[in-house]
Amino acid sequence: MTMTSTDAATDGHEAVALLERSRSVVQPELRAAVESLPPAVRRVARYHFGWERADGSPVAGGAGKAIRPALVLAAAQALGGEPHRAVTAAVAVELAHNFTLLHDDVIDEDPTRRHRPTAWTVFGTTDAIIAGDALQALALRLLAEDRHPASSPAAVRLTDCVIELCAGQQTDCALERRGPNDVSLDECLTMAMAKTGALLGTSCALGALYADAGDEEVAALDAFGREAGLAFQLIDDLIGIWGDPDRTGKPAGADLVAHKKSLPVVAALVSGHPAAEELADLYLRPMDEAAVARAASAVERAGGRDWAQEQAADRMSRAVQQLSGAVPDLAAAGDLLALAEYVTRRTR
Amino acid sequence: MTMTSTDAATDGHEAVALLERSRSVVQPELRAAVESLPPAVRRVARYHFGWERADGSPVAGGAGKAIRPALVLAAAQALGGEPHRAVTAAVAVELAHNFTLLHDDVIDEDPTRRHRPTAWTVFGTTDAIIAGDALQALALRLLAEDRHPASSPAAVRLTDCVIELCAGQQTDCALERRGPNDVSLDECLTMAMAKTGALLGTSCALGALYADAGDEEVAALDAFGREAGLAFQLIDDLIGIWGDPDRTGKPAGADLVAHKKSLPVVAALVSGHPAAEELADLYLRPMDEAAVARAASAVERAGGRDWAQEQAADRMSRAVQQLSGAVPDLAAAGDLLALAEYVTRRTR
Repeated sequence: MTMTSTDAATDGHEAVALLERSRSVVQPELRAAVESLPPAVRRVARYHFGWERADGSPVAGGAGKAIRPALVLAAAQALGGEPHRAVTAAVAVELAHNFTLLHDDVIDEDPTRRHRPTAWTVFGTTDAIIAGDALQALALRLLAEDRHPASSPAAVRLTDCVIELCAGQQTDCALERRGPNDVSLDECLTMAMAKTGALLGTSCALGALYADAGDEEVAALDAFGREAGLAFQLIDDLIGIWGDPDRTGKPAGADLVAHKKSLPVVAALVSGHPAAEELADLYLRPMDEAAVARAASAVERAGGRDWAQEQAADRMSRAVQQLSGAVPDLAAAGDLLALAEYVTRRTR
Repeated sequence: MTMTSTDAATDGHEAVALLERSRSVVQPELRAAVESLPPAVRRVARYHFGWERADGSPVAGGAGKAIRPALVLAAAQALGGEPHRAVTAAVAVELAHNFTLLHDDVIDEDPTRRHRPTAWTVFGTTDAIIAGDALQALALRLLAEDRHPASSPAAVRLTDCVIELCAGQQTDCALERRGPNDVSLDECLTMAMAKTGALLGTSCALGALYADAGDEEVAALDAFGREAGLAFQLIDDLIGIWGDPDRTGKPAGADLVAHKKSLPVVAALVSGHPAAEELADLYLRPMDEAAVARAASAVERAGGRDWAQEQAADRMSRAVQQLSGAVPDLAAAGDLLALAEYVTRRTR
């Protein structure tokens, strides 16, 4: 997934430094926004962001990588804007992202997030739902209050994106309930675009808006983020089957054990290859270690692995193409490219 | 609770006509906004608004009284604005209100709303949470897109209000879990103001903003709606204990059976009167019909009923006072007064 020889040489160090720089700019305003919440809601948010333990004692560090705010700032930079004027938009995106995480964890009953118990397991589903609601409101409050002329179109894009995220999460849950022979690849791609691509695209689009970019440039940045987001999802899905447990922190074949209808799996299921039937059968009952190995092999034999790898490469090339349309001198887009490279390689 | 002799004479007919007029203006834009949602989310919203049955077949009528949008339009009118320019704000308020209803029903596990099964009982909690999230986003999308100069300050107020509603719902749930001797009247009043007063106040404030009113007038309209909202809550709480089941559709003493820490109950519990102890004891175990009668009597003897009635009257008088500060010629505020009168008497 090497995009430029420089990126390959830095091996993600550049992106790590970028993310750190972005966090140092974004964190103070993010913290201040969360501090403005009423105490009982704030407590859940502080825990969720990793700033506090469940008992309210402070944690050094915390907060995850914050890729989306970094994309906002890098996009503003790439289009000749002043990144420091886009910090509010970056904070809004991060708040919206964390609102969806809080609700998704409740809905999916996920017990852990960023190696910690999820907020709903600590505070209950009521408080987690309410904290999510408040973070969405807070995200849009920041944009409504912001005096930058791009703040209204940014709010339109962010709310559209939230609605798309809602549709994506809804489809994801609906697909989980269906049988292995009752899902189409198109549905899954649309769902992945909605759940992962949309907010990465919106982050880049907001950065462009805050750099006073024209409609076409904003659309191109949105497309760049979306395509990079889908590439990321495809690679994440490959790792969910063939990832090295030592590097991912997840057991091998975790997605198969969970009967997850990830993109390589669905590509295999709809392939028409004889191995697709074997895979569908395996997806109808609990899998032991041997069954997981057979399922992974079936995905590979049915062409799901190759398809996902080609798709990921194809999506990244489309992403770069979109970007180069909006930023003819790709050197100005170095930070954006480094971040896109980073998100698609980080879990390998 | 009679406010003017004219209102008393019309006995709510004026308000009913007003609400109908407001709905005929607001509904088309509300419908169009909901229709813009992705299909799976839209389906839940259409059902929740009472426009469709669970199977997707259309229902004539539906949608409840829509008091909040009527307040937006009446407030705009009272301050010399053009109500038709405030329709978007009215729709945004109604969407935000219904987002909180969808989530509150999930959180409180309420089985019915407006005499129909709640959305989560029909579509599951996942879809109800997601539909609520989408309605919040949609509400703020409408304001972000609206070209009226008041739309940004309106979005700031609406998001602040949502955050207050979140805090109110959180406190409500926390109070439910506490013992009858472990709640203060101040907490309960703050909670009622957050859960009921805030959005009525915000509706009036948005109407004022859309009439290009000054900061002081906007604040006065906000206070008017908040005080009227609290009066409404107090009367609703009285009806929850002493309401006529034939008129309310609820069994007598429903709030007592549910051990609800409503305002008259908490006023009685903290009164220091000997009947308070009796009431606290009754609140520690299930109540049969005789116990409900004893509890109602205890609330009355401890002064909870009188306190709530006086508070409601006092709040309504404060509401009118706030209004008359902003609209010296109260005739111009006739619609607002009729609506306030209506909400505080409607369930008697």
